[in-house]
Amino acid sequence: MTLYGLDNLPYGVFSVDGGRRRIGVRVHDDVLDLDAAEAAGLIDARGALRTPTLNAHMAQGRAAWSAVRARVRELARAGDGTLVPLADCELHLPFQVADYVDFYSSAWHASNVGKILRPNQPDIPENWWHLPIGYHGRAGTVTVSGTPIVRPWGQRRGDGGPAFGPSTRLDIEAEVGFVVGTPTRLGTRVPVSGLADHVFGVVLVNDWSARDIQAWEYVPLGPFCGKSFATSVAPWVVPLEALAHAWTPAPAQDPPVLDYLRADEHLGLDLSLAVEWNGTRVSRPPFAGMYWTPAQQLAHLTVNGASLCTGDLFASGTVSGPQREEVGSFLELTAAGPVRLADGSLRTFLEDGDTVSITATAPGPDGTTIGFGEVTGTVVKTA
Amino acid sequence: MTLYGLDNLPYGVFSVDGGRRRIGVRVHDDVLDLDAAEAAGLIDARGALRTPTLNAHMAQGRAAWSAVRARVRELARAGDGTLVPLADCELHLPFQVADYVDFYSSAWHASNVGKILRPNQPDIPENWWHLPIGYHGRAGTVTVSGTPIVRPWGQRRGDGGPAFGPSTRLDIEAEVGFVVGTPTRLGTRVPVSGLADHVFGVVLVNDWSARDIQAWEYVPLGPFCGKSFATSVAPWVVPLEALAHAWTPAPAQDPPVLDYLRADEHLGLDLSLAVEWNGTRVSRPPFAGMYWTPAQQLAHLTVNGASLCTGDLFASGTVSGPQREEVGSFLELTAAGPVRLADGSLRTFLEDGDTVSITATAPGPDGTTIGFGEVTGTVVKTA
Repeated sequence: MTLYGLDNLPYGVFSVDGGRRRIGVRVHDDVLDLDAAEAAGLIDARGALRTPTLNAHMAQGRAAWSAVRARVRELARAGDGTLVPLADCELHLPFQVADYVDFYSSAWHASNVGKILRPNQPDIPENWWHLPIGYHGRAGTVTVSGTPIVRPWGQRRGDGGPAFGPSTRLDIEAEVGFVVGTPTRLGTRVPVSGLADHVFGVVLVNDWSARDIQAWEYVPLGPFCGKSFATSVAPWVVPLEALAHAWTPAPAQDPPVLDYLRADEHLGLDLSLAVEWNGTRVSRPPFAGMYWTPAQQLAHLTVNGASLCTGDLFASGTVSGPQREEVGSFLELTAAGPVRLADGSLRTFLEDGDTVSITATAPGPDGTTIGFGEVTGTVVKTA
Repeated sequence: MTLYGLDNLPYGVFSVDGGRRRIGVRVHDDVLDLDAAEAAGLIDARGALRTPTLNAHMAQGRAAWSAVRARVRELARAGDGTLVPLADCELHLPFQVADYVDFYSSAWHASNVGKILRPNQPDIPENWWHLPIGYHGRAGTVTVSGTPIVRPWGQRRGDGGPAFGPSTRLDIEAEVGFVVGTPTRLGTRVPVSGLADHVFGVVLVNDWSARDIQAWEYVPLGPFCGKSFATSVAPWVVPLEALAHAWTPAPAQDPPVLDYLRADEHLGLDLSLAVEWNGTRVSRPPFAGMYWTPAQQLAHLTVNGASLCTGDLFASGTVSGPQREEVGSFLELTAAGPVRLADGSLRTFLEDGDTVSITATAPGPDGTTIGFGEVTGTVVKTA
């Protein structure tokens, strides 16, 4: 099964031997050097492809994305341009993150977490069914896949006051992120039909979470140090255009949503995620079952007139399905007890040296499959 | 009383007649053009003063800040360089905001708000006394003083489900912001003694807040659309070095704080804020009484290894004192009933056309006074 054929062509930023960062597109197991292609006159994006991040091209808007993608496809099909073996590439954060927003859009996840963290309250608060709950995360600690995850220290609830030390409940959140290209002016809204005009592409996200720190700090203003130490993204941004065959009806919404969240076509994306813990596949979270869609998230994010910047990243929130083997966090996976990995070891939360890798696929045209690369990270002890 | 004499010298970014953005320093009612000064060889900051934001100079670190400031003072004293009348200048956002963090560090404010929003719970949650509660806000909607504040639309609690429309409880939060210059590496911490090594300067902040939207959305992940539509900052960044005489013992902390928050000198800044509503002074919030200090906020923000970027802004949270005429939000000011403005009108929350201006002063050396400019904004109806 080819995941990176001509129907995918995800964008990234690479370098070779410590050289300059360049924009490239993955074609099978090679990277097509778009910096070199634009320098050689094989493609014209007014210089936007000769920069060290995707931001300049993302800011050019939907028509330019489409035109560049079409030309990249021609080059890839013809074998024109410079192909660099992926194995020779160092991959970097593909875009400069402006604001990072994290949603909370899986009803299964919200219900599971509510039961664990707020056992004496309704598992899903009333407002959750009316709006895609979200909050701002730390943009400056969004890093590319492979960056070591330094176990965070912080406060947690202790006996008679807080305890302090390395997090004892370090967790993941398997998510799908949407990268904004086209900005907006302050005071304007993006309608629920506006997703494809503003979102350049899709990237896998692991929103590392320290549950002990988060549980102590999050009332009343939400997660902070329990999240802000690291968020990893895959090195490949899959163009939204490549996902034309992945749209699928999203779950019906009851109670009915307000008009600004009501789409003519209420669609989610049929991505199948996979989570591996030290090489053992522990979960297959289904993205198609998310209650709130990316189009609704974007409409809600801007309903108050908040402007968008090129490089804004908004993530879905943990992708969890109804089954234990479909959850996107270890808090949920191990709520009923530890899991056994292939090496025989038992795990509840992450130990130093543990590696988590998240991958995903989506249907492409004509029975093909679109791959999203991998977001991986290994936990290291605080120095 | 001079507020902008040689002991202050705050930094800003200005343009004249739609021209290029230039870095300048306010000297009384003029702006000393540092772009021109560096171009003319009067000052040397390796070109950092010839850029359209303060970020490049802020990234140069404490020794460079001190050297440039000393040289600026010589120029201002000697009358060297180009002075542009302030009245001829358009003032811009002085720095590009990286991440924006908002704290919640006034015990009076936390108590007042807790009583209003959570009447059936303890007004201040247990964790509040152990850590400076904070959350990430939207960096992309931080704008310079004078930018119109478009009244946000959104969801609020209604009868049998959410209501939707323009916010009916639009409010301010008078705050003091700290602007990070020197960045850090991911996985490292800033000690509580590290403030002056990392913070370039101080800026007034108005964190506009839609209380009806916020009250409905904020459980469980904190404020989002109720805040993200606009945050205004004053056009002048007062160098931390200019505030050497403004440090004052901060309130004693009981229960005792954890070691990472314990300073040899537990100091706050003696800023006196003033809030005017349509020209009527309605409050004088005292910054010296804040429970958590900026040094503690910075230590907490990085205790988990979160990196700092040049341009990070962290704000104090609403500055409120114990008296009604010392509160930094209208939610608190009008909790017991509307206020009457000088024109005879009554107000509870902001109406379209209302203007709010926040100013502040701090003690300088030898009986002088340091001014912080003004952060002002006028509410306009959604188009």
